[in-house]
Amino acid sequence: MATGRGAQATSPKGAAVTATAAEDAASAGKAPRTARGRRTLRAILDAAAEEFGEKGFHEGSVSGITRRAGVALGSFYTYFDSKDEVFRALVRDMSAQVRDHVTPAIRAAGHQIEAERAGLESFIAFVRDHKEIYRIIDEAEFVDPESFNLHYDSTAERIRARLAAAADRGEVRADVGEVHAWAIMGMNVFLGLRYGVRDDDAVPGDVADAVAAMLARGIGVPDSE
Amino acid sequence: MATGRGAQATSPKGAAVTATAAEDAASAGKAPRTARGRRTLRAILDAAAEEFGEKGFHEGSVSGITRRAGVALGSFYTYFDSKDEVFRALVRDMSAQVRDHVTPAIRAAGHQIEAERAGLESFIAFVRDHKEIYRIIDEAEFVDPESFNLHYDSTAERIRARLAAAADRGEVRADVGEVHAWAIMGMNVFLGLRYGVRDDDAVPGDVADAVAAMLARGIGVPDSE
Repeated sequence: MATGRGAQATSPKGAAVTATAAEDAASAGKAPRTARGRRTLRAILDAAAEEFGEKGFHEGSVSGITRRAGVALGSFYTYFDSKDEVFRALVRDMSAQVRDHVTPAIRAAGHQIEAERAGLESFIAFVRDHKEIYRIIDEAEFVDPESFNLHYDSTAERIRARLAAAADRGEVRADVGEVHAWAIMGMNVFLGLRYGVRDDDAVPGDVADAVAAMLARGIGVPDSE
Repeated sequence: MATGRGAQATSPKGAAVTATAAEDAASAGKAPRTARGRRTLRAILDAAAEEFGEKGFHEGSVSGITRRAGVALGSFYTYFDSKDEVFRALVRDMSAQVRDHVTPAIRAAGHQIEAERAGLESFIAFVRDHKEIYRIIDEAEFVDPESFNLHYDSTAERIRARLAAAADRGEVRADVGEVHAWAIMGMNVFLGLRYGVRDDDAVPGDVADAVAAMLARGIGVPDSE
């Protein structure tokens, strides 16, 4: 059986991304050392997303997670010290999953306004397949505020940095900064809630088109496309 | 002693607004019938905001609320059936307080883009004085989802309606609709979190200026001011 990164290279793209993230997810000193261990850890995180997504942190349990994952209780404690630790790992894992899902769409775009459009469309599609992400990240505000803050700070900083690079390329206005980054993050989070989690009554591309048209006029540089 | 609305008319504006809201806040069949009763109910809601804002719903207690409010436990149960009921009333009260705080600033503006600017500036200022509002409304997602959804649905609908009226007046583009309303709500919520709750490192008017400039180009109609 293939081990390590060789096994990931043959996996679908999403699985490779999350398998990589999973290596850092275990509690201190408990990182998996084999491909099989990484798969078990991945199964535990996916089961934790289901368990906490359905029941919330307080009602969710380690035994519920291991039952969903089809692993023994001992396997859980091979990788995590506690329910708190797996929740903390899950929040960071979901944050990384969102980032890894939308980044290729953003990078493939030829112009920053198109990149923001692609990022939002990709985010809404991701949310429709992972509706539990809102409940889990929102509950982190109470269960694990450090991970909650890290998620939004790192997301806003990523947007700010890509807007600054686009301003250097002359694609968005030179006065675009942190306020715009937090504004775009807020738009995306609430549009994901409305059109991803709540209802499938709109085409994600149409929502992204409306926002991109507003941003093209609002922060774009005319004729830079 | 003056009773009923006569007493409210002599109160500062904010107190009158919240006293009105408080009349609807009590549990079914427990609405206060006197000005004194309304003041007690108001004191209980303000104490509940402190208690739940500091401790969260699960750690917060009815006795903590009555201690902060300086009222007897019996007074609490004169107006509310339970801790769940006062939390539910508090979420709706805070939603109404935000609305009543920003609405005059929005109505006073001469043009819709200026109205959105004034609304955001006013919201950030409100949040700085009521930092507990995020924690309380965010926790409602778990404790009282109906009130949580009602808060965002009614806020988005209010924005959509005022944008539609502005489109009729030729102040914003005719294609502005629900997507823009949710986008603006999301921007305001995250900018309130960043510049209201987290840090006082920016002038609310400067944040609102940056957003208004983006909106003026993004959804405004040129030369309609």
